[in-house]
Amino acid sequence: MLNAEIIAIGSEMLTPFRIDTNSLWLTERLNAIGVEVRLKTIVGDDEARLEEAIRDALRRSEIVIATGGLGPTEDDITRKVFARVLRRRLVLHHPTLEKIRARFAHRGIPMPAINERQALIMEGATLLENNNGTAPGMLVREGERTAVLLPGPPREMKPMYSTLVEPVLRERVGEMFILRLKLSIFGLSESRVDELAAPVYTRYTNPTTTILVKNGQIELHLTAQAKSESAAQGLLDELGGKLEEALGDVVYSRRDETLEEVVGEALRRRGYTVATAESCTGGLLAGRLTEVPGSSHYFNEGVITYSNEAKIARLGVPRELIEAHGAVSEEVALAMARGVRERAGATFGIGITGIAGPGGGTAAKPVGLVYIGLADDEGAKAIRMIFPGDRHFIRVLAVNTALDTLRRRIF
Amino acid sequence: MLNAEIIAIGSEMLTPFRIDTNSLWLTERLNAIGVEVRLKTIVGDDEARLEEAIRDALRRSEIVIATGGLGPTEDDITRKVFARVLRRRLVLHHPTLEKIRARFAHRGIPMPAINERQALIMEGATLLENNNGTAPGMLVREGERTAVLLPGPPREMKPMYSTLVEPVLRERVGEMFILRLKLSIFGLSESRVDELAAPVYTRYTNPTTTILVKNGQIELHLTAQAKSESAAQGLLDELGGKLEEALGDVVYSRRDETLEEVVGEALRRRGYTVATAESCTGGLLAGRLTEVPGSSHYFNEGVITYSNEAKIARLGVPRELIEAHGAVSEEVALAMARGVRERAGATFGIGITGIAGPGGGTAAKPVGLVYIGLADDEGAKAIRMIFPGDRHFIRVLAVNTALDTLRRRIF
Repeated sequence: MLNAEIIAIGSEMLTPFRIDTNSLWLTERLNAIGVEVRLKTIVGDDEARLEEAIRDALRRSEIVIATGGLGPTEDDITRKVFARVLRRRLVLHHPTLEKIRARFAHRGIPMPAINERQALIMEGATLLENNNGTAPGMLVREGERTAVLLPGPPREMKPMYSTLVEPVLRERVGEMFILRLKLSIFGLSESRVDELAAPVYTRYTNPTTTILVKNGQIELHLTAQAKSESAAQGLLDELGGKLEEALGDVVYSRRDETLEEVVGEALRRRGYTVATAESCTGGLLAGRLTEVPGSSHYFNEGVITYSNEAKIARLGVPRELIEAHGAVSEEVALAMARGVRERAGATFGIGITGIAGPGGGTAAKPVGLVYIGLADDEGAKAIRMIFPGDRHFIRVLAVNTALDTLRRRIF
Repeated sequence: MLNAEIIAIGSEMLTPFRIDTNSLWLTERLNAIGVEVRLKTIVGDDEARLEEAIRDALRRSEIVIATGGLGPTEDDITRKVFARVLRRRLVLHHPTLEKIRARFAHRGIPMPAINERQALIMEGATLLENNNGTAPGMLVREGERTAVLLPGPPREMKPMYSTLVEPVLRERVGEMFILRLKLSIFGLSESRVDELAAPVYTRYTNPTTTILVKNGQIELHLTAQAKSESAAQGLLDELGGKLEEALGDVVYSRRDETLEEVVGEALRRRGYTVATAESCTGGLLAGRLTEVPGSSHYFNEGVITYSNEAKIARLGVPRELIEAHGAVSEEVALAMARGVRERAGATFGIGITGIAGPGGGTAAKPVGLVYIGLADDEGAKAIRMIFPGDRHFIRVLAVNTALDTLRRRIF
């Protein structure tokens, strides 16, 4: 597999306010033709550091793509520094100069003298025309290496890459299909997932497998490459199937769905409905359920009963139950689930009560303690969890766990 | 000015799916104590490239901060490669191992054997305790250089940096005070904010001013530097005051608060309470209000009345009103606000009804149409908005607008 590096050039990306996002798009396009991105560098308007970054990249990687720093000002040093590293002269490209002049003339503005710099091209480079701005790009071959200089603004960079660079790279790479599969997992720690999955995926170098953690959920990303689409799909199916077997029902999607989409689809298909009664999660569970378009098919109503009085008045939780066990208790979670199910006339009722913190924890009931009750026509069950993290994270984990509990009940 | 480099480690950041955002936060904190970020490298689980990145960074820059790759799996190579470059042995730190074991035990899970690796520490390094996860960080001095290894997850990395790393770096940097002020703005477009603010801030080079847009909200970031804290604060106060004057009451915070924090503090100070009745936002308004610790002081309950039946049964919205005007109408928003206020016995009631899409829009009632009703002891008022964007963005804008409407009512 050919490998590439991306160098993003511009001091604004070394401030707290701006990030390089061009490389995400470029990575997707490069991956799609079978080129792997192995390193990214973000460097400012700093000639020494840029020179070193370019030298290192050309030594390590077959394809080097630089974005930014092709503007008309003193700060725009990309052209100059690449020419120095590649020991090529910069020569004035007259047709480009005329084009830039015409661009300004069209807007009724005389071309500032500094824009002349944008018509300087490295000797031996292929000029990449810019139809959405003034700065042309360049593509240079140096032995087995290919260097590509692209403008920074996405609306200039993207069409230039798509029309002028990708075809050249695709020819170098040959016909190659890269497909991906994502397994979404809930209910195990990252290390436990790896313990189960590594003995399977380490036997394969193609597909490659990456583990990601996101909001307490685990994702396994598989990437396969082959000379035909069906061969790549076959590789994914084989490893994906074995991983699903090894992991079991903690895998909730292999189609990049969210938990609420999986749950929603399952409810809808069976004609079930769900109603929610939330205390510590304060509406976030209902918020997630209703994030899915069409959720009105299976979600009619929910309540947020933050105070004890609300739990009593809106859900019929007996006052004595709260007094005997506390608002954060299995008994109250069950009563909330039953209460909301009954009042809403839903197939399922979910009740959540817990201590999201930062205050309110005790030795017996620490911050992070959450009870999740699930009621159906056969009765109600509750689970007890102690979630780590801050208030926000505890609430997110509680919502995820509630969604997953419902998923497991339906499947 | 001291300079720093940041190395973000993890193959997921070389895919199209994930980007390094830790460095934005770190850059802000480093800038705030007078350290400039000169280069960022993003490298995968690739020992050779990581080794080179670390070597280069330590040669070029006084401070090198690495994030990520401290997890328990084979892919987590940061510890090992730093130890190799710095020629230090990795030794097992028993108290850390016990802490990791206890963390698992607290959650009732046995520690997987692979987690033992996270208790390996470089000889001579300062251990950085992790109170939000298993992997500790490290700080190593090598002559004039300082290397810092931090975990990748932001909720682990940020508190570790703030409490254990920043004080050490601040001591090295000495006296230069960089202070920031953020004006948070809601209710005007970016270009309108700039029209009002630019005539004021362009007269200053210190503080510098940057405009950012985030979830439909505008932020003005002012950065001042001076030899004393009071001098820097004085510069911020002067320009900040003038900008607030130019912008008026669209500025809802100058202390980096969220809308729900500002609203919550105002409710609390006055002893007011609020209850929510949500249709299209499906619980997200209550979710935002309860994101604030201590929100139980002013929030007791809310309902999500997604279906018409729920609006009628839970809020007393007259069926004829829905039949005459439709569920998405000013009349229904007002009735929801009144209904929930009365049932909850709250100072304020908020009702939200709208069309979040993607389906359900008509010419008369397009996707994005949202009515927000606010009821108090004098009656009820509603506003009508048409929000742009997708389902998610429409819901976020509706919640922000509801919070801001309440803010303006209280102040």
